[in-house]
Amino acid sequence: MSKKEAIERLLNPGSIAIVGVSQDFTSISGKPMKNLIRHQFEGQIYPVNPKYEEIEGFTCYSSLLDIPGDVDVALIAVSSKRMMQILSECEQKQVRSVILFGSGFAETGAEGEQLQEEVLEKAKKARITILGPNCIGLLNVKKSIPLGFSTSFETEEGFLSGNVGFASQSGALGFSLFGLAQEENIGFSHVINTGNQMDIHTLDCIDYMLEDEGTEVVAGYLEGIPDGEMLIRLAKRAKALKKPLIMLKAGRSEIGRKAAMSHTASLTGSDETFQAIAKQYGLVVANDVDDMIDLMKVFSRGKQTKGNRVVTISNSGAAGIAMADYSESLGLELTRLPKETQTKVEDIIPPYGSALNPIDITAQALKEQHILTDTLEALINEDQVDVIVVQTTFGGELGRNICEKIVEMDKTTEKPIVVTITGTKEITGAGRTILEKASVPVYKTSYKTMLAIKHLEDFSRFCRSHEPDQLEHPNVQVEENKDLSGIWTEVRVKKELSSLGIRIPQGTLIKDREHLQEVKTSVPYPVVCKGISKDVLHKTDAGSVKVNIKDAVELEDAYESIVSSIHAYNPDADVDGVLAEEMIQDESVEMFIGVKEDPQFGPLIVCGLGGIFVEVLKDISIRRAPINDNEASAMLKELKGYPLLEGVRGGTRRDIQALTDALVRISQFASAHSGRIQEMDINPLWVFEEGKGVAALDGIIVWKKDEEAVVNVK
Amino acid sequence: MSKKEAIERLLNPGSIAIVGVSQDFTSISGKPMKNLIRHQFEGQIYPVNPKYEEIEGFTCYSSLLDIPGDVDVALIAVSSKRMMQILSECEQKQVRSVILFGSGFAETGAEGEQLQEEVLEKAKKARITILGPNCIGLLNVKKSIPLGFSTSFETEEGFLSGNVGFASQSGALGFSLFGLAQEENIGFSHVINTGNQMDIHTLDCIDYMLEDEGTEVVAGYLEGIPDGEMLIRLAKRAKALKKPLIMLKAGRSEIGRKAAMSHTASLTGSDETFQAIAKQYGLVVANDVDDMIDLMKVFSRGKQTKGNRVVTISNSGAAGIAMADYSESLGLELTRLPKETQTKVEDIIPPYGSALNPIDITAQALKEQHILTDTLEALINEDQVDVIVVQTTFGGELGRNICEKIVEMDKTTEKPIVVTITGTKEITGAGRTILEKASVPVYKTSYKTMLAIKHLEDFSRFCRSHEPDQLEHPNVQVEENKDLSGIWTEVRVKKELSSLGIRIPQGTLIKDREHLQEVKTSVPYPVVCKGISKDVLHKTDAGSVKVNIKDAVELEDAYESIVSSIHAYNPDADVDGVLAEEMIQDESVEMFIGVKEDPQFGPLIVCGLGGIFVEVLKDISIRRAPINDNEASAMLKELKGYPLLEGVRGGTRRDIQALTDALVRISQFASAHSGRIQEMDINPLWVFEEGKGVAALDGIIVWKKDEEAVVNVK
Repeated sequence: MSKKEAIERLLNPGSIAIVGVSQDFTSISGKPMKNLIRHQFEGQIYPVNPKYEEIEGFTCYSSLLDIPGDVDVALIAVSSKRMMQILSECEQKQVRSVILFGSGFAETGAEGEQLQEEVLEKAKKARITILGPNCIGLLNVKKSIPLGFSTSFETEEGFLSGNVGFASQSGALGFSLFGLAQEENIGFSHVINTGNQMDIHTLDCIDYMLEDEGTEVVAGYLEGIPDGEMLIRLAKRAKALKKPLIMLKAGRSEIGRKAAMSHTASLTGSDETFQAIAKQYGLVVANDVDDMIDLMKVFSRGKQTKGNRVVTISNSGAAGIAMADYSESLGLELTRLPKETQTKVEDIIPPYGSALNPIDITAQALKEQHILTDTLEALINEDQVDVIVVQTTFGGELGRNICEKIVEMDKTTEKPIVVTITGTKEITGAGRTILEKASVPVYKTSYKTMLAIKHLEDFSRFCRSHEPDQLEHPNVQVEENKDLSGIWTEVRVKKELSSLGIRIPQGTLIKDREHLQEVKTSVPYPVVCKGISKDVLHKTDAGSVKVNIKDAVELEDAYESIVSSIHAYNPDADVDGVLAEEMIQDESVEMFIGVKEDPQFGPLIVCGLGGIFVEVLKDISIRRAPINDNEASAMLKELKGYPLLEGVRGGTRRDIQALTDALVRISQFASAHSGRIQEMDINPLWVFEEGKGVAALDGIIVWKKDEEAVVNVK
Repeated sequence: MSKKEAIERLLNPGSIAIVGVSQDFTSISGKPMKNLIRHQFEGQIYPVNPKYEEIEGFTCYSSLLDIPGDVDVALIAVSSKRMMQILSECEQKQVRSVILFGSGFAETGAEGEQLQEEVLEKAKKARITILGPNCIGLLNVKKSIPLGFSTSFETEEGFLSGNVGFASQSGALGFSLFGLAQEENIGFSHVINTGNQMDIHTLDCIDYMLEDEGTEVVAGYLEGIPDGEMLIRLAKRAKALKKPLIMLKAGRSEIGRKAAMSHTASLTGSDETFQAIAKQYGLVVANDVDDMIDLMKVFSRGKQTKGNRVVTISNSGAAGIAMADYSESLGLELTRLPKETQTKVEDIIPPYGSALNPIDITAQALKEQHILTDTLEALINEDQVDVIVVQTTFGGELGRNICEKIVEMDKTTEKPIVVTITGTKEITGAGRTILEKASVPVYKTSYKTMLAIKHLEDFSRFCRSHEPDQLEHPNVQVEENKDLSGIWTEVRVKKELSSLGIRIPQGTLIKDREHLQEVKTSVPYPVVCKGISKDVLHKTDAGSVKVNIKDAVELEDAYESIVSSIHAYNPDADVDGVLAEEMIQDESVEMFIGVKEDPQFGPLIVCGLGGIFVEVLKDISIRRAPINDNEASAMLKELKGYPLLEGVRGGTRRDIQALTDALVRISQFASAHSGRIQEMDINPLWVFEEGKGVAALDGIIVWKKDEEAVVNVK
């Protein structure tokens, strides 16, 4: 049974055995049964515990093996010590999907870790798929089937089903969040808690949910990334399906990472890298629980934006100002209305209102409902508007009427309409509920409203963009028999860069005195001379660089001086020779481009400006290789120092196109050599004025030592 | 009657006339009367409207003048056109405090503005103090006296009184926020909406509330700052009283500012300046409505922190990780517990929990209440802990019991205890309410919890810091007869800087050829020569700088060349002479220090590093002058480029003390010349290595042209 099939079975069981069930329905081993009864599970329930004859009218069995019918899913609430025995019984009974609630596994240290491994091994042999251990369970919201002991299952109100699927590594956080979201009438398809995720992990659940027809929005809470490659595949699939994938990722701080490792034995990875991956592959990142709920709300409506031109309608001046403030800081555009529509609005609202965006329909709208609805109509019909925000403080009957009208109008347009109602439940709650039940996103504050729109627009823009296939098919091939080991010094790296189409200075590696005599008249004076040795990585420290060598006499001096400097610095150094290179004198901006291998995501490409930008400001930009032109361009624009490339204050504009191109090529190289590069650094890369290209002045590649360690992350 | 007395009267009226009252209690002119009746106002109510004989059993009068008794406060709900007449009646009836609800004043344009001025003038003559116009009214929460027509007044549940005072320029926002805060059991003393603030403005209300005994936390929503000097005075007073002053300031964006001006005819000022002022004077700045409520909550408990060492206790691993993540990003310290206390905690919690901060007391705490409370006790007794966070998801009876116990323990310590309960109202609401009613701050998410603690610690630290008196008494005096007009060029500015004790290069202003002959052997070669003319502000443009002049011959050449260059550049230029200055060759970092006059806050001092830091990164730091050593030091540390001063990557550490000192002195100069400086720029100021001081290499002061325009903001 594939994991997907197992998840399908777990969510839609016809028969459920509860192993280790307790008659005490307030206990953790009693709650799962109580919850199934409470929500009127229509399939078979088989309690299993030798202590009881029956529980609440259900026959209780001594063992799984005594159950007369088939068992689709076993919920296992026995101590970790009995786990191996129970698994044997599952195997005999052909139960293929089980949930382990108990703790006492990898989260407790070495002993538990070993047990967990043994359990997993046994399960794999028996073709049993496991959710958990150390988990609270799951909920099929559509069918009201709770399997587990979350307090959220104890509601007497039933669950609100809808199109949001949610997988959470943490049970406490996951089901609290679910409960809070349900309070705001956000409907779910499924909620799954993966706990120690020994077998089924959070990304497996996300994978299932993405393909689930009834699920349009998928959300995940993760402390670690179980499989970087899979996350990227899921993100691409989410884009193709236009289903937003919302992530709340914990363990961003050093202490948080340590706590995450003791909590769930998972590797959390660097936040920097995760953020870069999220940006590159269009994941929607939530900052906290509230934020996650706000995002579920705006996305569950299922509309996308066609651009970032926002118009706001409000009956409070303060709200208009607030929305303008937040728009600016979030990068949304409070667009200027075309004259015709502005006039239309002017004719609708009182003369002391404002038809300029933010539109102020004034408190008169408290009396005349048509003021709001006619204005809304005009904006729905205006093509220059992408998103409409309605802010109201209306309560009572008027508020309800207006909200009903908004629901109706929202159905007539593909344009997102987002509402802010700032007021108490007593006064404005009824209106808010009308909107929520119709999935029209409604927030209590202008800030939350504008932030939700920003995320909606970011994801929509991501879905609108078309990436060329080249991204998937890097045009760099690894030649056969190429020696990818040890250290490639400057000369070798430059040869490679040159074959990638990246300019390097013209030069000659002078191998010995004899060679020196051959070439001394033909090198392109003035030249720079650099000693080349894999044993000397910091050339200036070894005194092995000489600049502005003008003629053959100076070249001979430089050669001797460099060779003896290197030997003085390191008597054992192997010297490949002295590189004599043309001295490029064009004015330039210094960049660096690097590659590092991430254990979860494979080769990352990093770039930045040199000097204080990297040393003082840590101003760098990261993407997973390979990247295409658009992504390379986005990388550069992210840099704080980007204006230097554009030419700040009358300065020269640099050849950004050539730089972009170099980034793409190096990223393709990195991708083609995925899993083999330990470290690669092109530094400096000079960027000349527009039209004059770039040149790589120095570079190094350190290949991975252990061929065994190669992980091909293609 | 002072404004304070008027506000006191408005909040505590014995008798109220409602002029222009309507029998229709759903209308704006009917609601104020209905609200007084609803909340059982115990004083006299005098409805005034010639149309009616009586309303709800109250005699209705044709005019204010017909009322038999005294009238403390008049609520005026007539159209703006009748305002002058009503004011005459108020004058005759000796009503000294009135609230104008109506719109049609400055917010509508020129005509309304004129009317507003006339009304104000008349009121001043009649010694009448006005709240409004264009306002919703106010609420004395302690006495349940609502004066106005906010929907919040229509609650049947009564108001929760407490120690938070709130003044809001916007009525809609103000009373919505009040309602939402009451939903979370935040108690208020007073809420006042100032609207167009023609007479009483938001800061007047804050002033009143700061001095009010029953108010311990003061909050304000402002679109503009009506009086910068007053805001600073209030901030200082708030610090002295240890009462936090929480501000939500709108109009931060360009569009928001424009909207604010049309909305309330107020000047909003630059957000940059407001943020700098807030930092300098310890204002607590809220980002939005939610944030404001969260801040009211944490501050209304009345405890302050003694440091930023936070310990968190939770029964969910995910919450522990989240709190660690947010602590790091907010600059709080999840402190390491002393061994002894750690052992104590280990003995309390289950063995698979964690006594390392974040402390994980595990789900076992769901069964045994003492685990949480004993751990809490141990942390209360640990001096190395400043703030304790308790995160729980407990619901039901257990949750209630735990919350009651926390309330008890919170009373035994001065240490802030902040609680997170992430769960639905149905499950966790009762526990949350127990905490809220006891003013123990409780939030739904870890992010909000940690953010509230960060603000609490920021304000507490501000209150803990003692600023030397020097701040209030700048030691720079303005000499009499000093000519503070026109432009001071480099030579004059340097003389001034030198007298302030700031080093300038040694040099001589060579006034003419004769003078040149006199000094040519005595100047400190090598020198830099610069032409000095108030008509040439950009010296390099005019070719009037020559460097590295080594002897008398070169000096003569330089002199001639500079003078003729200036005349070629600008034939009418007045040339003061040529400044020959020592060439300082010590390695240095370039800074600039500037002064600009803010219309609301007076002289601001600005500093930053030169080059890309200011040009590309806009990396500057602002304070209001004068500043002391601590503030100057904080200014520098704010700069992104600060590591350059500290010596990044083995670089030289610079003379930060001398730079700090120069900032303080220039700020004192700026303060002493408050209202007279249009622009002052010391650029560059070189900062040498530690112990070697600083030197001002160039500078200019442009004095204000119009002596009339001087506003002395001391």
